[in-house]
This record gives sequence, structure tokens and C-alpha cells, in this order.
Amino acid sequence: MKVLVINCGSSSVKFQFVETQTKEKLAWGIAERIGEKDALFTYKNNKGFAISKEKTVFVDHEKAIQTIVDHLQNEKCGVIDNTKDIEGIGHRVVHGAEEFCSSVKITNDVIDSLKKYTFLAPLHNPANIIGIEVCRKLFPEHTQCGVFDTAFHQTMPKHAFLYAIPQEYYKKHMIKRYGFHGTSHRFVSRLAAEKMNKDIKDLKIITCHLGNGASIAAIKGGVSVDTSMGLTPVEGLVMGTRAGDMDPALPLFMMENLQMSIKDVNALINKKSGILGVSGKCSDMRELHDLIAEGDVDSKLALDIYCYRLKKYIASYAAAMGGVDALVFTGGIGENDEFVREYSTDGLEFMGIKLDKKKNLELNRKEALISTSDSKVPIFIIPTNEELVIALDTEKIIKGDRVDY
Amino acid sequence: MKVLVINCGSSSVKFQFVETQTKEKLAWGIAERIGEKDALFTYKNNKGFAISKEKTVFVDHEKAIQTIVDHLQNEKCGVIDNTKDIEGIGHRVVHGAEEFCSSVKITNDVIDSLKKYTFLAPLHNPANIIGIEVCRKLFPEHTQCGVFDTAFHQTMPKHAFLYAIPQEYYKKHMIKRYGFHGTSHRFVSRLAAEKMNKDIKDLKIITCHLGNGASIAAIKGGVSVDTSMGLTPVEGLVMGTRAGDMDPALPLFMMENLQMSIKDVNALINKKSGILGVSGKCSDMRELHDLIAEGDVDSKLALDIYCYRLKKYIASYAAAMGGVDALVFTGGIGENDEFVREYSTDGLEFMGIKLDKKKNLELNRKEALISTSDSKVPIFIIPTNEELVIALDTEKIIKGDRVDY
Repeated sequence: MKVLVINCGSSSVKFQFVETQTKEKLAWGIAERIGEKDALFTYKNNKGFAISKEKTVFVDHEKAIQTIVDHLQNEKCGVIDNTKDIEGIGHRVVHGAEEFCSSVKITNDVIDSLKKYTFLAPLHNPANIIGIEVCRKLFPEHTQCGVFDTAFHQTMPKHAFLYAIPQEYYKKHMIKRYGFHGTSHRFVSRLAAEKMNKDIKDLKIITCHLGNGASIAAIKGGVSVDTSMGLTPVEGLVMGTRAGDMDPALPLFMMENLQMSIKDVNALINKKSGILGVSGKCSDMRELHDLIAEGDVDSKLALDIYCYRLKKYIASYAAAMGGVDALVFTGGIGENDEFVREYSTDGLEFMGIKLDKKKNLELNRKEALISTSDSKVPIFIIPTNEELVIALDTEKIIKGDRVDY
Repeated sequence: MKVLVINCGSSSVKFQFVETQTKEKLAWGIAERIGEKDALFTYKNNKGFAISKEKTVFVDHEKAIQTIVDHLQNEKCGVIDNTKDIEGIGHRVVHGAEEFCSSVKITNDVIDSLKKYTFLAPLHNPANIIGIEVCRKLFPEHTQCGVFDTAFHQTMPKHAFLYAIPQEYYKKHMIKRYGFHGTSHRFVSRLAAEKMNKDIKDLKIITCHLGNGASIAAIKGGVSVDTSMGLTPVEGLVMGTRAGDMDPALPLFMMENLQMSIKDVNALINKKSGILGVSGKCSDMRELHDLIAEGDVDSKLALDIYCYRLKKYIASYAAAMGGVDALVFTGGIGENDEFVREYSTDGLEFMGIKLDKKKNLELNRKEALISTSDSKVPIFIIPTNEELVIALDTEKIIKGDRVDY
């Protein structure tokens, strides 16, 4: 089945057009800076065609999605004859609260729910809703599906998802650990079980999704039992620009002592912290390595904090499950950064986690087993593919099959 | 040497009068509700004398401390002839920032520094300063020493004490992880090494100080390399009324969505959360167990969260040190609560931590080894004694000896 996967941000639309049978992406790209004067449009297909238009204009998300669809059926660069060849549309949706613990067919009720949960993801859900509404308008006949970042983690037990505050904040105000990146954690944990030739129901897997955002999950018997992102994506691991864990009194301390507003502190911990904050120079892990190679001390410190925190989480999630059978690295950094994988597992030998440094270096960027032959716990690199999962879920929903969660 | 140990709170003065040679407390007690109409005064001595006066009045801390000293030299209940028999005075001080990484003799400069750091511990340092100033006034000839809750943790490396925010917040505004309960972590880690007949320099020890406040420390080679309390005592483990770790964006979310003020959120996470918040009924662990025995589901959930978080921290601190050679429980809960010790170590067998359930139950409340004979990691109950440490440090400073940190 050919599925158009849409990931709509506040000023961007990412897309992939996927053939689920072959798991191949037929075309992909992104429209950026929607609403601005110097928008960007990138479109590639699996026949080697690639364009990147600068200084173009998309007045709104509708125009951007229309442009994407025009290219999909364009004589020169298209991959389909007409829009009837799009057999389903799958949307990445950030926040489904507790209501959506699986992927769903989009209905009016679903959209109403997403609007209701906007206060939980004020930066993301409104953009996701726009993407859905535009596609419904452009393709009223097509089945559309929503695949949620939060859904996979809604299996967490209460002792893992509740904050230690009065329970009325959960019951009345929906304050809890939701977790994100669920699509990725679900995907790579299943692949890890396959690679081990074991039933995921019998496994305890720790998955580290390390991209610009980053989270880690404890997956026991195939279901998420804990994850590091919480009510918001700020909590947990250190990220490109997000602070990760810190004293919950710190934001209050800053407001009281440094005359910062709620908005100031939110911007600080979301946009100016993490690798960028500590290094003072960049949020990108590749640039960070370049700076470290040049002897930059603050950049090295940023890397140290990043890996130290990750290492502690890996051990704590093993404890959460009473042990660990596999450790998986995924996401841009998880797949491509041998230093992060090395430093974040260095010292975990006491719990049976032994990285093969040679394999870690040589098999970088590939799906690979990178632990030593005597490591009790296999360590995998498994490239994630959230778009494929969204396409496959969409196909299953259209066919009326059960979606694996 | 006979040392008077003073622990001054905002409306209370706790004291112990200690003979350092025998490590015996000669007299101890507390003046509570200072400045209120129905103050309390409790005084006990090592000869079995005990009084508890209700509905008394202390106009201020000076009057309370004077009353304590009067009792110490009282014919009926006293333990000294006159104040010359007090050979030193040791004060518990909560916050010494980065300046005080050991115990010190109190001077005018020290007091000036403590005043400077009041913004870091607005609830505690002003009371500590009052205690010091009152004692200096009452006993101008006596040497007084300050023993800091934060001092022991100032050996933490940067990657452990820095939050992942721009470094200017550390350099200009002193925002970092300070840690607390240092006196207790220091004391019990040294006793653990003694009990193992090993040099603490060769050991990796995890100490769990679980009282009404609670923190955990990773102690490698005798020095603290990580601890769970941070800039404030809110961070880390779940406590009687403190929330412990949570999404740092949560306080901001509450202020934006629930019309709460800085003060409201601070009160919530300090005074109404933790065991009290989740159970909705009590902050005391003993009461919690009674409620659980009666079938109270929320109380059980509070205990589950408490132990689950603690277990994860134990594993993460083993990872921080590349392994662990001993695990120590101390503090009111750590020493006396067999359930907490059992549930927080249950599932850590994969890392060589095996509790002997029978010993755990039978040796409750005592200094004891409670791991199985085949546990790689010995687990100890070691009663803490912060007052003794303060007295011993005071003695060393008076004698000009090096204080062990």
C-alpha cells in the first residue's frame, strides 16, 4: 500500500511517500519556513531526483501540502499518476494524552480530542491538527490515521508515570509522565527482539533514542514500563537545546532571584540549554566533536554531562525491570556517534554490558551488534524509521488489522 | 572533650551535649515553637532524667539556648557544674556553598559568608546564623565551629554537579547541585569501610540517607561523586512532603495553566508532596504502613513510588562509579523500615545486590549486615549520628587536627 506520511510542524511539513510492501520510501522531503518570505522546499525521489528550492513562498500549510502532492504526481519527478494512487495518509501526532494508546483512524471526534489536549503540547498539537485538517480538505475521500508519540508509553504503571505530588493534579489536571518518541522506541525494540530471535514478550529491552531530542525507554515484555521524557519533552536526558533533568525548584529559584518570567525560563530550558547551554557554542553533536577535537573544554564538558546522564539512566532502567536483555541505540546520535555509545556504556561492565570498541567504531551508522562476544547484554545499533511505522500502522488501520502496540 | 551541638531551625533549637572520648551523649533535647505561645521544651540526660514541658514560652532563640544551658548545669538534671565545662560548641549549618568544603572555626568572616549564601538556603541559613550569633553572645570565650550539610559533596566533579543550562548560571549565579545530608553520608560511609576492614580509598559505596528528608550519595574513594539533592533539598528521592525529581517544566506548567504563584508551587513541592501528596493522608512512613495494612491503595502507591525511585537511583549511582562495593541504609526510615529496604533492593540481584530478607527483618534498627552470604555487594544498616560528627569535628578544629573529609 502506498501511504503519504505527514509530519506537520508549526512552520514546516515533512513528508514521506512510502510503499509498505517493500518498506521503500518512494519520495520524501520538507517544506520549511511556511508563511515566511524565504521558504525552502526540498523534494527527492527514489529514482535519484532531487530539488531544493530556496526563496520560495508558502502562504500556509495547505499550499505546502498541495505543493508536495503536485510534485508526487508531476511528470518529471512524480512517483504516482494521480492522487488516487495515494492509498492512505498517516499523520504523526505528538500528544494523544491517555486517550490514545494506539494509532487510530482520524474522525471528527479524534480531532476534537486533539484540540482538547492542546494545552499539554501547545507547540506541537496545533500544527499536527492543521496538517490533518488540510489533508482532509484536499483529500476528503482518503482515510487518514494518527500515530502518536505518546501512545506507546501509556502502558507505564502508575508508580512510573505519577509524579510525587497530590494525585488531584493527575486526576483533575492530567499532570503525569506521558513520554514521547514512542513510535521510535516501539519500532527498534521489536527489531531488536527479531535480531535476537526471541519473543519480545520474554525480553527486557532498553532503547536509547538520541536525536536532537532524546529519550530512553524501559520496555518489558514488549510494553513501555518507563521513559525519561515526562509531562513535557524537557525532562530526562540532556538534548541539543533542552536541559533534561534538573531540580524542580530551579525554575522557581530563577524566577525569584533572577527576575525571569515563566516564558524566559521555558525558553531557557527548551531552547538554550542542553549541549548548546553547556558548550555555549553549538547544539549539534557533530559540531561538538569538531570543537572537542580543537580542544574546546566546554564542549568536552557538554559531552561528558550528556553521556554521564545517559549512562545513569541505562542502569536505572535495568533496575526498573530487574535486569536487561538488550540495549539499543537509535536516532541520529544513537546511530552515528561512536563516542556517545562508548562513553555512555563505559563503566557498565559490572552489569554485564560490554561494548566491543572495534565493532562500535567500524559498524557505525549501520544496523549492527556492537557488544563483545562475552557481553551478557547484546548492544545494538538499530536505525529508527518512524515514517515507516506510521505508514504500516496506517495500512493496518485501513485494512482493519490489529495495530501492534 | 565535651561539646555542645546546636541545630538551630527557624522556630526550634535541637541540641546534644556530647563527650567525644566515649562518643556518648550526656544530654539532649529540643526547644520548639520559639516565639509562639505554646512552646515545647524537651530535655533528657544519660542518667534517665527526662522532662517535657508544654505550653511554655521562649520569646526568642536566645532564651531557648539559655534555657538549654541552664538545664545542663542545673543541680537536679544537669551534667556539668558550670559553662566552663562546655569545651566547644558545634553548629549544624545547612548551606556553605562552594566556599566551605570542610568544617570550620566560626569567625566574623564565616558569618559574613553565611549571610551572603542566604539566598541559596532562605529557610535554613538565617536560623543557623541566629544560633551562632546567640552562642557567640552567651559564650564569647568559647570556640564555635560550623559543620555544613553541603561540605562533603563539594568534591563532585563538574559533570555531576552542573545542570545542563548555560554555564553563566553557575559562574554568575551559583546555580549548581550542592547536595545536603553530607555529614550523614560521610559518617556512615566511613563506618561501612571500617566494617568491611577495607580502606575507604579503595571502595565504591552508595549511602541512602532516608529520613523525613532523603538523599542518596555515590562515594568513590571516600569522596562524594554524586548525590540526589541539588540546588535545593527538593530534588532527588521522594520524601515525606517533598516531591523529589519531576519534569522541570512542571512548575512552569502549573503557573501557566493552574494560576499558581511561585510561592504556591514552592509550597506544593516542598510541603504537600512526596508521601503526603501521593497518599493524601500522611507524611510519616510508619503511619503509611499502618494505612497500607488497612488496605489503603493510595498509601501503597506512595510506598511503591518511593521505593521504585530509590531503586533506580541505587543502580544509577553504581553506574556513576563503574560498580558498587557496599550499599548502606541510614536515617529514620533507612534504619527502621524493613519494607523500604526490601522493596528498594528487590530486582537488583542482576547487579549483585541480594538482600537477606530474614536478616533484614530481624536485624532491623541495628547496625547490621543484611545481605545474603553470596551477595557480591554487602548491604548494611548503619545508624547515622550527625551530632557526633559535629562534636568530633569541633574537637578536631579546637585541637588543630585535620578534619577528615
